[in-house]
Amino acid sequence: MSFRNFPMVPRVVFGRGSFNQLAEILEPVRKNGAPFIFLVDDVFKGKSSLVSRIPLQGKDKIIYISAEEEPKTIYVDGIRDDINKEFETVPSGIIGIGGGTLLDYAKAVALMLTNPGSSADYQGWDLVKEQGVYHVGIPTISGTGAEVSRTTVLTGPERKLGMNSDYTPFDQVVLDPSLLDGIPTNQWFYTGMDCYIHCIESLTGTYLNAFSQSYGEKSLDLCREVYLEKDSIDEDSQDKLMMASWHGGMSIAYSQVGVAHAMSYGLSYLLGTKHGIGNCIVFDQLEEFYPEGVKEFKQMVEKHGIDIPKGLCKDLSDEQFDTMIDVALSLVPLWENALGSDWQKTITREKLRSMYELM
Amino acid sequence: MSFRNFPMVPRVVFGRGSFNQLAEILEPVRKNGAPFIFLVDDVFKGKSSLVSRIPLQGKDKIIYISAEEEPKTIYVDGIRDDINKEFETVPSGIIGIGGGTLLDYAKAVALMLTNPGSSADYQGWDLVKEQGVYHVGIPTISGTGAEVSRTTVLTGPERKLGMNSDYTPFDQVVLDPSLLDGIPTNQWFYTGMDCYIHCIESLTGTYLNAFSQSYGEKSLDLCREVYLEKDSIDEDSQDKLMMASWHGGMSIAYSQVGVAHAMSYGLSYLLGTKHGIGNCIVFDQLEEFYPEGVKEFKQMVEKHGIDIPKGLCKDLSDEQFDTMIDVALSLVPLWENALGSDWQKTITREKLRSMYELM
Repeated sequence: MSFRNFPMVPRVVFGRGSFNQLAEILEPVRKNGAPFIFLVDDVFKGKSSLVSRIPLQGKDKIIYISAEEEPKTIYVDGIRDDINKEFETVPSGIIGIGGGTLLDYAKAVALMLTNPGSSADYQGWDLVKEQGVYHVGIPTISGTGAEVSRTTVLTGPERKLGMNSDYTPFDQVVLDPSLLDGIPTNQWFYTGMDCYIHCIESLTGTYLNAFSQSYGEKSLDLCREVYLEKDSIDEDSQDKLMMASWHGGMSIAYSQVGVAHAMSYGLSYLLGTKHGIGNCIVFDQLEEFYPEGVKEFKQMVEKHGIDIPKGLCKDLSDEQFDTMIDVALSLVPLWENALGSDWQKTITREKLRSMYELM
Repeated sequence: MSFRNFPMVPRVVFGRGSFNQLAEILEPVRKNGAPFIFLVDDVFKGKSSLVSRIPLQGKDKIIYISAEEEPKTIYVDGIRDDINKEFETVPSGIIGIGGGTLLDYAKAVALMLTNPGSSADYQGWDLVKEQGVYHVGIPTISGTGAEVSRTTVLTGPERKLGMNSDYTPFDQVVLDPSLLDGIPTNQWFYTGMDCYIHCIESLTGTYLNAFSQSYGEKSLDLCREVYLEKDSIDEDSQDKLMMASWHGGMSIAYSQVGVAHAMSYGLSYLLGTKHGIGNCIVFDQLEEFYPEGVKEFKQMVEKHGIDIPKGLCKDLSDEQFDTMIDVALSLVPLWENALGSDWQKTITREKLRSMYELM
């Protein structure tokens, strides 16, 4: 098809306290004897305010996962194997509760319960052939757009790349802004900036159409309200960041991210840099490509008193630079979106090396 | 549930020329021997530019329907009965091609092929119990939001009211802005104003939350671009009106329309006034309820040289006024959204009569 037939999340509930409806939402989907598996960010371990409200029944199980590292194919495969070993039946569903990392794990595990082999085999575009098990996304931090996107970004043995497919999006999303309570300031900033940055990349990209533009513009407006106009995080900020992330994710439907994401994937692959902070480190140096966006970004950095880490690359070897450059260059659609089909005229290995050296 | 678990259209394609992908979109859904039925606005009869591109196969059938009148339960039931008589199997799907009227017919017929009785039995909220047949919406004029909403508004023997249900939304929407070519100026204005007016009603309503607000605001921004900033209809206007309608429809997810729609339903029930023009006739007199919206609306009316019809009600009998007032008053959620739970303090029969007398 010339134009993508975009899969939207078919069910969404939005509301402060809507997490309490989870039992009611899951009940019609429960298959006799087949458990729901809740993948939960381990920062919530022992925090009864959230955990006690997870509606466990029968053989349902919570698996805590650390979001300290970016999601990896090897962990996805491991979680899938553990579930298969423990349960005789395919689960009724997988529910991811956390930030982008947990949401990506939930999407990937749901797909790997019905598709053979390793998740690394499916890093790319439209390689997934079978519908996954029912999967639900419940963000507890917003910005990445993982709750609405058709990808789940994984670091594999050879690359950092998403499983982009029509089967990837969640079957159900629960948007409860009260779950954003208590997020550390840095994480609030970096994750929100992921949203801001991918909107800038989408809106200035060559792939853009009116569908993606309208979502991207609204997302950007909301990011500006949250990060430029407001002086503190209140309920209204939480509501708006949640919607900024949602619309920002939708804006990728007929668009792509760009230079910041391509280079940030390199950093992340080599150094394990988390996605949000990695994007900020890269975007801070991209005035040449996104002059207005970077200027506004620097205002937000200053307003929130954030220190963007510097000097990550100062002691790297040639081989390490080459690894990052290889990962970045492999993301062809991102470069094409950012700079058009002749992107290779601008983006040479030397150019990328000189840019990475600034970070 | 306290918060509605909103059903979104699970598949959407957007793009100028995307109508040509229809065969490819329908192919995986086709059931052996079961036809697709295309409900097409009869203004396209004989217009090969559109009709020749409808991908008919086997027993597939086009049924032309006039959009001169608002959709009626009796016609929905009739189309359903005709399909059942002609075909031994339930159709593979129903495809609506046209404006809000045709989209509403497609949704209603799809539901009535699997739900017993008359469509009039299902006018209300969540009365539909069985999933309908697969249904596709392809707007050829945008504004009503019918392509994305969970209602299909019908005039029945007793009321004008939608079949609001989780089964109502389309399974697939094709947004091809080039299909908006050649719309008469008046229709372009009135249908677009339906969007503008329901955004004003949604954004000023008491039901609003951040989800609906973000969609409503974006829709309103786009309406302003199309109807205030631009001097002629170009491709960009078509793209943007299509997205305004889409986002405007989404803004109703956790909101409602208000005074204009409630009173316009009365006009439409009694006099058969078409929805878009009816909303304009009513809204023009609603400065008391929506002062800023009505002011901006009047600017758009003036800019586009539109004559809003007046004097529709001047020769009506007491009984006719009573009929309109009964229909309007029956729409409790609309009044509650507009004016809060004590709306009956403001909205009396006398008040409505005096307002209708101005129209």
